[in-house]
Amino acid sequence: MSERRLLVVGAHSADFVWRAAGTVAAHTAAGGRALVVALSYGERGESGELWKQEGQTEENVKRIRHEEATKAAAAVGAEFQAFDLGDYPLHATQESVDRLAELMRDVAPHVVLTHPERDPFNPDHPVAHAMVARARLLSSGAGVASGFRTAPPSEFLVFEPHQPELCGFTPSVYVDITPVFDRKADAMRCMAAQQYLREYYTQRADQRGNHARKVTGDPAIRQAEAFQRLLPNVVGAL
Amino acid sequence: MSERRLLVVGAHSADFVWRAAGTVAAHTAAGGRALVVALSYGERGESGELWKQEGQTEENVKRIRHEEATKAAAAVGAEFQAFDLGDYPLHATQESVDRLAELMRDVAPHVVLTHPERDPFNPDHPVAHAMVARARLLSSGAGVASGFRTAPPSEFLVFEPHQPELCGFTPSVYVDITPVFDRKADAMRCMAAQQYLREYYTQRADQRGNHARKVTGDPAIRQAEAFQRLLPNVVGAL
Amino acid sequence: MSERRLLVVGAHSADFVWRAAGTVAAHTAAGGRALVVALSYGERGESGELWKQEGQTEENVKRIRHEEATKAAAAVGAEFQAFDLGDYPLHATQESVDRLAELMRDVAPHVVLTHPERDPFNPDHPVAHAMVARARLLSSGAGVASGFRTAPPSEFLVFEPHQPELCGFTPSVYVDITPVFDRKADAMRCMAAQQYLREYYTQRADQRGNHARKVTGDPAIRQAEAFQRLLPNVVGAL
Amino acid sequence: MSERRLLVVGAHSADFVWRAAGTVAAHTAAGGRALVVALSYGERGESGELWKQEGQTEENVKRIRHEEATKAAAAVGAEFQAFDLGDYPLHATQESVDRLAELMRDVAPHVVLTHPERDPFNPDHPVAHAMVARARLLSSGAGVASGFRTAPPSEFLVFEPHQPELCGFTPSVYVDITPVFDRKADAMRCMAAQQYLREYYTQRADQRGNHARKVTGDPAIRQAEAFQRLLPNVVGAL
Amino acid sequence: MSERRLLVVGAHSADFVWRAAGTVAAHTAAGGRALVVALSYGERGESGELWKQEGQTEENVKRIRHEEATKAAAAVGAEFQAFDLGDYPLHATQESVDRLAELMRDVAPHVVLTHPERDPFNPDHPVAHAMVARARLLSSGAGVASGFRTAPPSEFLVFEPHQPELCGFTPSVYVDITPVFDRKADAMRCMAAQQYLREYYTQRADQRGNHARKVTGDPAIRQAEAFQRLLPNVVGAL
Amino acid sequence: MSERRLLVVGAHSADFVWRAAGTVAAHTAAGGRALVVALSYGERGESGELWKQEGQTEENVKRIRHEEATKAAAAVGAEFQAFDLGDYPLHATQESVDRLAELMRDVAPHVVLTHPERDPFNPDHPVAHAMVARARLLSSGAGVASGFRTAPPSEFLVFEPHQPELCGFTPSVYVDITPVFDRKADAMRCMAAQQYLREYYTQRADQRGNHARKVTGDPAIRQAEAFQRLLPNVVGAL
Repeated sequence: MSERRLLVVGAHSADFVWRAAGTVAAHTAAGGRALVVALSYGERGESGELWKQEGQTEENVKRIRHEEATKAAAAVGAEFQAFDLGDYPLHATQESVDRLAELMRDVAPHVVLTHPERDPFNPDHPVAHAMVARARLLSSGAGVASGFRTAPPSEFLVFEPHQPELCGFTPSVYVDITPVFDRKADAMRCMAAQQYLREYYTQRADQRGNHARKVTGDPAIRQAEAFQRLLPNVVGAL
Repeated sequence: MSERRLLVVGAHSADFVWRAAGTVAAHTAAGGRALVVALSYGERGESGELWKQEGQTEENVKRIRHEEATKAAAAVGAEFQAFDLGDYPLHATQESVDRLAELMRDVAPHVVLTHPERDPFNPDHPVAHAMVARARLLSSGAGVASGFRTAPPSEFLVFEPHQPELCGFTPSVYVDITPVFDRKADAMRCMAAQQYLREYYTQRADQRGNHARKVTGDPAIRQAEAFQRLLPNVVGAL
Repeated sequence: MSERRLLVVGAHSADFVWRAAGTVAAHTAAGGRALVVALSYGERGESGELWKQEGQTEENVKRIRHEEATKAAAAVGAEFQAFDLGDYPLHATQESVDRLAELMRDVAPHVVLTHPERDPFNPDHPVAHAMVARARLLSSGAGVASGFRTAPPSEFLVFEPHQPELCGFTPSVYVDITPVFDRKADAMRCMAAQQYLREYYTQRADQRGNHARKVTGDPAIRQAEAFQRLLPNVVGAL
Repeated sequence: MSERRLLVVGAHSADFVWRAAGTVAAHTAAGGRALVVALSYGERGESGELWKQEGQTEENVKRIRHEEATKAAAAVGAEFQAFDLGDYPLHATQESVDRLAELMRDVAPHVVLTHPERDPFNPDHPVAHAMVARARLLSSGAGVASGFRTAPPSEFLVFEPHQPELCGFTPSVYVDITPVFDRKADAMRCMAAQQYLREYYTQRADQRGNHARKVTGDPAIRQAEAFQRLLPNVVGAL
Repeated sequence: MSERRLLVVGAHSADFVWRAAGTVAAHTAAGGRALVVALSYGERGESGELWKQEGQTEENVKRIRHEEATKAAAAVGAEFQAFDLGDYPLHATQESVDRLAELMRDVAPHVVLTHPERDPFNPDHPVAHAMVARARLLSSGAGVASGFRTAPPSEFLVFEPHQPELCGFTPSVYVDITPVFDRKADAMRCMAAQQYLREYYTQRADQRGNHARKVTGDPAIRQAEAFQRLLPNVVGAL
Repeated sequence: MSERRLLVVGAHSADFVWRAAGTVAAHTAAGGRALVVALSYGERGESGELWKQEGQTEENVKRIRHEEATKAAAAVGAEFQAFDLGDYPLHATQESVDRLAELMRDVAPHVVLTHPERDPFNPDHPVAHAMVARARLLSSGAGVASGFRTAPPSEFLVFEPHQPELCGFTPSVYVDITPVFDRKADAMRCMAAQQYLREYYTQRADQRGNHARKVTGDPAIRQAEAFQRLLPNVVGAL
């Protein structure tokens, strides 16, 4: 049987780290392949620390962000690829949607993760969601034979946004990341320009771990990540 | 490792057949144990065919319904138990909720299935939902040590109602029942008093199978049943 | 063909006047029969003007409210019946639900109107809704032959509450009451104890008339009442 | 009085057949006029059977699809018109929205039917919805005199999508298509390239018929189609 | 401490008058500064009275609408600025969003008011909402240091649309405009081309005043305007 | 002017500490009066640590819980009162609702805080909500003169539940508790039997502080508590 493939698409190069790095690590630890795509580097809106350096340039910010994200992805066993479409604002052109759809046809992921559809605190996250949702449909067709190359439809989930209730995010699955949490911690350390987020997301992993313990009664769970499925999944038994 | 236990609670004795018998069969085929509880026999509201017989009595209707449900449960490998609380209307007394909670402490099910919270076409289904939801919480406590006997919290899902969109039912998991569909067909044949539902739910299984094929791209799926999870489930990987 | 029957159930004796009297008038003007049921007289919570009279008694308040409601109903061609179950709080006993269900079996209404399910400003309106919804289901059975007497299922709508958006009320049908608005005005004048509501609901009828004009483009509509259907209606063509 | 005009707009040329052909037939049988507009032929995404033929060309697929849709429309008494805007993806340009708005000003439909706003299984259906919703508003103005030619506002409904609960579709009206179901069957037979959908939508019509029977208690209803009104309708009585 | 700044953005030049002029007046009466931005003049869709004059031109309509809005703004102590982007349809180009974002960076408003996200009766209001929401995020950044000039994030509320329940509008704050209602009345009188709306919105202010009285029990409130907060507000105490 | 009165009602004696103690402290620090009512002691479901002591009795658990809650309330300047209605399950009798309503008539609170309406993890929280909502309406009447003693309607908010998204909780106001956080910390230390919650809710206060910083851009905010208003509040200006 072939390996299980996971595709994570973030609006900015660090998004996957805070929200899904544990799940990526669990996936690759189990022998799966993971690819992280960043639609932009977050070079304007989310690299404030870097811009405090005198003489900073956009090109240099992007270079640093590329290195950081590549290292963080490697820490959880994933490849990293950047589309470099620009941030604040990120624009969804048909060309970039097609590029993403073509990548999906090539990778044929079993699972796709991205931002939720809404985020009243970020102009780029909803654009990223729309691009991924659209590319996913264009790459998989209508579920019947089509006049173009398709990949099988993937499972489609969104990861946790910063203020979940205000983004319409309701978790439907908790991934237990206890066994791989140190790898997520490694990945978070790679994002030098946003170290203020490390404590926040370390606490968040603890809280989601607490939630997962309450749901299962299993005291062994310490850290978790929360996701919302956008489509039913199909199983052989409950 | 111990067997996986499934508890299905219906307002009336035939409810589990149409909506969950395939999933029960898949569960027992995989070595799990399944218990079906009927809160009432549906003796007044859902046994119209039986009441067409002259001289029919409530006691006799209940006896026939008990036999049918026991056979249907056996057809999918499950035990059947009746609470005989009366239908149209079914009443939720604290005593009957406690009885259900005590049963849950004894059985300690991994998964609980019942009706959705709302049903504008049936007075008893929402009552059954409320009883099960309440008994489930009373039997599992607050997720910490308690001053009373508890069972671990179970997964909690609702099965498909008759007119799903009008009951606020949004499927979040499709169970592929293709390999066991003949056993569901056997169970449906046991409900002699409601044979007009057999064709309806056979078609419905086909349609949910079609939906599950579209979601996965897997042409081997022919029949499915739809459920909605009310709580996140916890997994080790996506 | 037999006459079309409309049943309006309010928590308090005046509720039907402000929210549905125009629709009742349109119904009876077209040859239909209308019955208004008040579950209570609103004698404690909605008769403040009467309680300002020295030596006022509950019995006297009820008597006055009965007379007013009977006159208001007559003004729009309807009969009035009071259950006198008490207000603030109104309680839903099984006995009173059964009484309402029995009345529904006798009347066999084609259309039932009552309060919405939620009202954060009134303790009795949601109780009335629950009673009506339950009685309606108990009187009509599961849509198949039953072990008890049934009436055909009725259309089921809720009328407009005082602060609609906060009650989850979304209008799905506007009834043009322009031709019968003077009869609604007559009915409103009968409720001497709540004259401060006349201006409010006269303006409201104008505004709903404005909304109905915008929806249709028909300049002849001057006044309307808004309702929300809780169940699909069945038609022969759109 | 002038004839009643119905406009059905689908993203692809076959959409109207599965979801609304019965309602079109009922409309024309009652003396109304019906126009079907297809924004694309579904030539890439929904013509898989045709692409299995060696040497197939897009032009030929479109030609076949045009013929099929024209015949299917004729089977239910409607005209067919294609915008040929391309599918997978369908794009909503201002020019095509204007073209649709201009058509609406010319036809001045009483009722407009199209896809729901959301469809997580199809990239083109939501685009079609947005085009129709926008064109409808641009053609009817603000309900007051405007600086451009307008048509009266039409009733606006969406037809049933493939997986209704996942598209946010809640039926608010069932059209009884029992008397014209054979004409819908004829229309479905015209769509040779998608014969696998015939059984699915025949069963679906039966199930919606079952739902409409439960809602009304009328045993004469055998087949129905489900729609959701997006705006209140205005009536003279309930 | 610096003055408190309010920014109101309407799709058409008169929108602010009907829905927010009282709140603007209360704001400026308390010493705050208010700026009204109209994205278009509503010259095509909402100036029907003006177009009834023979020989009317778009340029003249715009000139009259500019004068009226300037006077109405002055009546409530506000400045008026027009973007003149065209109406029916209003288009959201990146250039105009950037212009609005730049204005927000300059003004640094504490509070921003605009239309709700949805309006099934108006093609331009949702476009205006999307522009304002996007410009607001682009002007304030991610709440951390950014590679571009930012203004602090503002409170963000939407004002009441014409048919609130159908626009998903749920009021979360009522502004008591009793002390300044005469100024709102003055502003409404300035909009000569839409005098038919004066009575409607005068009644609406009364009704919202009634709602605010019911919420607080304060009999001194006579008129109010309703708003919905889109984001939590932060307070030092409840 | 009279003092501002805050009433917090929890299902169990410790609920107010974790979710609202900071807001209580801010309220009393500003000169307001605060009363905490516990409907039960949580003696069975939330006192697991105490039950680990050999020979423990329910009476002794209640005594300890009463002392802890009284101290915790005192730490934030509030009085504590227990209804001792029993937990797991808490029952809402008419008598206890009347007792709560009578207390509300006596206290005449300006603000009432309690649990959200739904909580799929706790059987008692929704019961407490329903009791408070009902008592609040019964104590304040219909906003007009009534035939019984009333208090003015209070502001009504719910505090944050354990897993907010799954309880339908969407924050609409953040209270900045930075200046009084040490008092909340004191209160949390009083609850010796649930010390495992201290870290959880200390982190939660930090995260809500982070959210409040993002909403305002104010770096001085360190800790906050989140609430959802159930009714609009009335203000003199935005």
